[in-house]
Amino acid sequence: MTFDAPQIRAVADAMADAARAVILPYFRSDGLDTQNKDASGFDPVTEADRAAEAAMRRILEAERPQDAIFGEEYGAKPGSSGLTWVLDPIDGTRGFMSGTPTWGVLIAVSDETGPRFGMIDQPYIGERFVGGPGQAEMTGPLGTRGLRTRAARPLSEAVLFTTFPEIGSAREGDAFRAVSQKARLTRYGCDCYAYALVASGQIDLVIEAGLQSYDIQAPIAVIEAAGGLVTDWEGGPVHAGGRAIAAANREIHAEAMAVLQAAL
Amino acid sequence: MTFDAPQIRAVADAMADAARAVILPYFRSDGLDTQNKDASGFDPVTEADRAAEAAMRRILEAERPQDAIFGEEYGAKPGSSGLTWVLDPIDGTRGFMSGTPTWGVLIAVSDETGPRFGMIDQPYIGERFVGGPGQAEMTGPLGTRGLRTRAARPLSEAVLFTTFPEIGSAREGDAFRAVSQKARLTRYGCDCYAYALVASGQIDLVIEAGLQSYDIQAPIAVIEAAGGLVTDWEGGPVHAGGRAIAAANREIHAEAMAVLQAAL
Repeated sequence: MTFDAPQIRAVADAMADAARAVILPYFRSDGLDTQNKDASGFDPVTEADRAAEAAMRRILEAERPQDAIFGEEYGAKPGSSGLTWVLDPIDGTRGFMSGTPTWGVLIAVSDETGPRFGMIDQPYIGERFVGGPGQAEMTGPLGTRGLRTRAARPLSEAVLFTTFPEIGSAREGDAFRAVSQKARLTRYGCDCYAYALVASGQIDLVIEAGLQSYDIQAPIAVIEAAGGLVTDWEGGPVHAGGRAIAAANREIHAEAMAVLQAAL
Repeated sequence: MTFDAPQIRAVADAMADAARAVILPYFRSDGLDTQNKDASGFDPVTEADRAAEAAMRRILEAERPQDAIFGEEYGAKPGSSGLTWVLDPIDGTRGFMSGTPTWGVLIAVSDETGPRFGMIDQPYIGERFVGGPGQAEMTGPLGTRGLRTRAARPLSEAVLFTTFPEIGSAREGDAFRAVSQKARLTRYGCDCYAYALVASGQIDLVIEAGLQSYDIQAPIAVIEAAGGLVTDWEGGPVHAGGRAIAAANREIHAEAMAVLQAAL
């Protein structure tokens, strides 16, 4: 199988552009007419989710018809190239519904070994984080910058993110809190945006449980291209979903893993 | 005392523009050279905080020399007009240090009754939320829109925000959680941005404890101009700081207050 990185990047850019155009009219659209929404049963995030995935799939049908697709909304479509596009049109639907700007469009391209290319796009801010063979960069309000994860520092100096404090099962929550208690700062609520913060060298760790493959494949590719690593809580591959630890470097990964393992 | 709303708005816009220009070069500046930072003791958020407040004060000295100033970084300067500018150059420093885009520049103008004008500015996204006599609007990536808080809905349908789950004292935390348990969704981590979400009709409630006056004065003016209300946990004025509940409307405020009061 060939992996034409520039062409894949161009197709992913076109897909993310299409998703932005479809989603943004729905974002915060219920601010001024919640009565209408309640009366009609109209659900902006579901509508936006479906419309965005459909728009991305149309581009793939035209540009990469031989590739497989796995999307949150429309499921699996088989392919013959050995590559699969893994799509989450809106990661962070609860954030989206609350008007926060930390949800994102996730696009990954995987082969049988896992994700090789990933994109995290935040349409409202206009930010795009990309990682793959030979590329690790972001574009946004301040222009284009290379992505590089943070240098190693002790867990006691590290910043940790997760989306909800009530993460996972009771036992998983205890394990998370064991790490949190040793970290310098724990922040909540960022959905996929937290992975972008790892990739761009702003924070050290993201720990989550209960993930789907489409939640984590793009973050894996972006963070690994930027110098970090993403595994499950046992240190193995996590591209099929489950419990993830995303780390800026091997040292902080090892220190956090030791605490997680001891607490599980 | 006269309150020249258009002139005050123009001065506040100039101040927020100046703060943006000063702060943005510091935002995420430590992504790629954390070693330099650690070695030099350079603290980007403190530097940005001070430089932004100094820039805003320079504009006030030139344009509104008769007004008093109270700022987080440089304290109080007396005035003779009966108006005080209350400034928090970076609200949400821990969010700023983590690279999240939900910190903000807070500017308020108060008289002896409390805040009459407020501005919440998010420099990275390029969003500005403004409320005062005759004005309630935001500008941002999608243009200019009027601000209006959400219509009433039961607490069981409401979205609640606070910055940290470990809010306040143990007793205050219990009271917060009593409200949270009855709400549809609780989200964390947004700093001052959560108040902007109340003003723009996206969420129903923000509950915080341990606030300073400069944390809450601008949000009060913006939310009240948009149709909401902000009080302390006893229902009285909160512009001097303390424990705040910001609500989209009187109904949700009353329902949440009853739960808070019963739990305190």
